[in-house]
Amino acid sequence: MKALRVIKSDLELAEVGVPAKGDECLVRVTKSGICNTDLEIINGYAGFEGTIGHEFVGVVEESADLPEMIGKRVVGEINVGCNKCALCKSGDSRHCAERTVLGILGRDGCHAEFLTLPARNLLEVPDQISDYEAIFAEPLAAAYGITEQVEISPDTRVAVIGDGKLGILCAWSLALESKRLILIGKHRDKLRIAENENVESVTLENALKLKRSFDVVVEASGSESGFETALDLLRPRGKLVLKSTFHGKSKWEAWRIVVDEITIIGSRCGIFSPALNLLKDKKVDVEKLISEEFLLHDSIKAIEKAREKGVMKVVLSMDR
Amino acid sequence: MKALRVIKSDLELAEVGVPAKGDECLVRVTKSGICNTDLEIINGYAGFEGTIGHEFVGVVEESADLPEMIGKRVVGEINVGCNKCALCKSGDSRHCAERTVLGILGRDGCHAEFLTLPARNLLEVPDQISDYEAIFAEPLAAAYGITEQVEISPDTRVAVIGDGKLGILCAWSLALESKRLILIGKHRDKLRIAENENVESVTLENALKLKRSFDVVVEASGSESGFETALDLLRPRGKLVLKSTFHGKSKWEAWRIVVDEITIIGSRCGIFSPALNLLKDKKVDVEKLISEEFLLHDSIKAIEKAREKGVMKVVLSMDR
Repeated sequence: MKALRVIKSDLELAEVGVPAKGDECLVRVTKSGICNTDLEIINGYAGFEGTIGHEFVGVVEESADLPEMIGKRVVGEINVGCNKCALCKSGDSRHCAERTVLGILGRDGCHAEFLTLPARNLLEVPDQISDYEAIFAEPLAAAYGITEQVEISPDTRVAVIGDGKLGILCAWSLALESKRLILIGKHRDKLRIAENENVESVTLENALKLKRSFDVVVEASGSESGFETALDLLRPRGKLVLKSTFHGKSKWEAWRIVVDEITIIGSRCGIFSPALNLLKDKKVDVEKLISEEFLLHDSIKAIEKAREKGVMKVVLSMDR
Repeated sequence: MKALRVIKSDLELAEVGVPAKGDECLVRVTKSGICNTDLEIINGYAGFEGTIGHEFVGVVEESADLPEMIGKRVVGEINVGCNKCALCKSGDSRHCAERTVLGILGRDGCHAEFLTLPARNLLEVPDQISDYEAIFAEPLAAAYGITEQVEISPDTRVAVIGDGKLGILCAWSLALESKRLILIGKHRDKLRIAENENVESVTLENALKLKRSFDVVVEASGSESGFETALDLLRPRGKLVLKSTFHGKSKWEAWRIVVDEITIIGSRCGIFSPALNLLKDKKVDVEKLISEEFLLHDSIKAIEKAREKGVMKVVLSMDR
């Protein structure tokens, strides 16, 4: 099968064998989405080698443990735990110390014709959700997962910084909880895509007039300046949700956190089922975020496209 | 009266008038404690000019609003709010945007013969508490205030980093809540002072064998390396309480916060009454932390002493 792989810092579309399923399910991938994390991995983040990609929809072809899964259309939680530790036994493998992560850590990903995942990681996709919507289950879960960590009520004043895909998904999903949310970005074209009846958008320069007024600020711009803007916008004792994994060492003024008693909350993966419910009920129009679609055999070009300025989600469709 | 003042970056023991009380209380200071924040202010932090010092015990000499306060032995909450905003009306002026802070922000402090504070800031000191103990009300409130922000139960695994005065006060007071607390420091002499039946101490090199095992880590060392150690020690989804206000821009690896979904909680001032209860009930032996006592007229020497390596709390006694 074809697979988009990073080997020794080189990206290549390789011809490899269909993965052995072992006691996992074999999934034929239908479509996958290119995430900024894929681009970071290509740039060397975390030293991952193998097939990249962690946003997908597919169909189960083989399942030893659960034959009733065969033929189902599925998405998959990306963290695969040891299934033995206390965390895994509580049903949440996201922080299992032994975990592998689809296309990110110790496990081949989804920009390929096939992948394997344990049956417990797979969720059937309701008929109301298109394949194009389903590939957003993972990033939407990551965005809406903020509500697992921070209480957001209709009166909570929320600012989301960053008008990329993740920022917009955060804004859309959190605006279902807060009636006082704004999205802050630098790109008027992206902000226009983001705006809906719940989400008001503001350019960065106008946002800075709103200093010290937000209960919760979500930093999803992936930049050091975004972090400083977040501190400017928060009220004392406000909460800063750190969503983007910018690498290398950044500078920060720790004393500001202490004096204003700010809480910073690191936020990575969410759980899928609430996100699938949002998609099923058409609460968020994720298809608006798709910029372009490529066939898997053009996936090198697709990555180049995903790197272009102004491009949002690039989708891979598996050619067969 | 004599007052220890910072004027245009110079420290001087000045002769100034007794402050006009206005609608506040006039307090004759009995003893005061030198805090590391005093040393930072002398070094130019926050551009404060005036009389420094914010840890004191004294006796009320004049009180227009509450004559029954006259003659009482008191300590004082250091944040003075506007008394009009929502925060102040809720009884908590610590984050009032218009606040002044004793000896730190817009208000003369306590290394002087007299100070003024509003009656609402003053708390009578129970007879069981000595003057030497009473000057620890402020730093002990700051340490024990962590329990206002983070739930600490007997089973919570807590590490406190930093064997200075603040770190030790954090360790002593939090060990009244957690039965699984360790104090981490570099100085065996200080760690020996800190150890008691609740607090086990560990040197830094031994602490690093305990990576990823703590629910809560309190960073009270005031150093960048302390922050990195804290990240090393925390379990995924653990809580890092940031207690010390190191200035300037530090470097940090924001992605670690995101991947392990760490929560960082800035923590500044606590409320006094729980701290006074700890002192009254002899739950913490704060007098062990006193290194030396000076008369106010020797306060320049006292500051030099406080700067010396290995010196803990330096006390000023007001000469009259």
